[in-house]
Amino acid sequence: MSTGRPRGPYAKTAARRKVILDAALAAYAEAGSRAVSIKDIADRAGLSYAGVLHHFGSREALLTAVLEARDAAAAETYGEEAALWRTDMLAANRETPGLVKLFVDLVAAGAEPGHPAHGFFVERYRTLRRRLSRALAGRPPADERPAPTGDPDPEWAARVLLAATDGLQVQWLLDPASTDIPDDIARLRDVLLDALDRAAAPDRD
Amino acid sequence: MSTGRPRGPYAKTAARRKVILDAALAAYAEAGSRAVSIKDIADRAGLSYAGVLHHFGSREALLTAVLEARDAAAAETYGEEAALWRTDMLAANRETPGLVKLFVDLVAAGAEPGHPAHGFFVERYRTLRRRLSRALAGRPPADERPAPTGDPDPEWAARVLLAATDGLQVQWLLDPASTDIPDDIARLRDVLLDALDRAAAPDRD
Repeated sequence: MSTGRPRGPYAKTAARRKVILDAALAAYAEAGSRAVSIKDIADRAGLSYAGVLHHFGSREALLTAVLEARDAAAAETYGEEAALWRTDMLAANRETPGLVKLFVDLVAAGAEPGHPAHGFFVERYRTLRRRLSRALAGRPPADERPAPTGDPDPEWAARVLLAATDGLQVQWLLDPASTDIPDDIARLRDVLLDALDRAAAPDRD
Repeated sequence: MSTGRPRGPYAKTAARRKVILDAALAAYAEAGSRAVSIKDIADRAGLSYAGVLHHFGSREALLTAVLEARDAAAAETYGEEAALWRTDMLAANRETPGLVKLFVDLVAAGAEPGHPAHGFFVERYRTLRRRLSRALAGRPPADERPAPTGDPDPEWAARVLLAATDGLQVQWLLDPASTDIPDDIARLRDVLLDALDRAAAPDRD
């Protein structure tokens, strides 16, 4: 008789990993922008430093698992498909700058093909691009969407254009065929200029 | 009588630093996506490892100076104000993935306030945001701009929305007051949805 749930040593290992990951997420949530060490996580999980690493194999593998656990928690709270329509997930990130920093550090390191986090990030962006483009293709008509949040202005457009360039570089390093950066940025520039024109002359259409 | 140029020991130091930075840029340009070590740079500059570090004080300070030198070279080639209208600078980056990787790594590390590259990156983004928003505010009328490069499509919009989110996180970590990420992304989402609507129904206006 099987319950479909792992039992014996594997179940114990899986449970221990969950304790460690919960401890890590809690440590990052409380740390603000202070750095979190493996020892902080171990103390909180009631394990030794070596005991924590043993369950993941390496520091990089543990930190990758922390980001996977964070994605899983976000999917549970916000739903996998709803991300496009809600920015409360992004607002919640403000409370956990340590996790944002971990993400930024690890994705940079993971851009190297030999890095333990490489496969995780390649797959993560492929999945997100696929989900997001499906949601954008199936967008509801304009009158059924949330009201627009604010007019485009040049300072906003500058932040976004710089940010998109930086972010596309990461996607390109991870997965060179995923983006033609000059073309993607030229199209964004054109769309932003058009949006600025419309905001400046709202009666044009 | 002064020529306005530094002389004596300082001039020699400055010249030596330039030799090292030129060697570093050349090493990165030739390395493709392979990692560049300080030793590669030292060999190319005809100096010892310790000799190279001596001129910059630390590995991080040397790598920061490499990115400064790259910005200076780009400003010389492309002009400081023209960046908005040309994407050949981004196309050129394709040939130097090692420098793109160095940038991504160092900006992540530099998000930590105590890091040697922190001040450089904070200032770099402030300057770029200021220049870019000025260029966007003073944009020429639509009929004097280069022809648009391609229609928006959902896959493109997905890449760009993900990329902007990632890039804004970096700007926020460096300079928390510089962006309200949820608001900036909501505005981008609205502009992208509008652009997709227009591309799908080009006769609407």
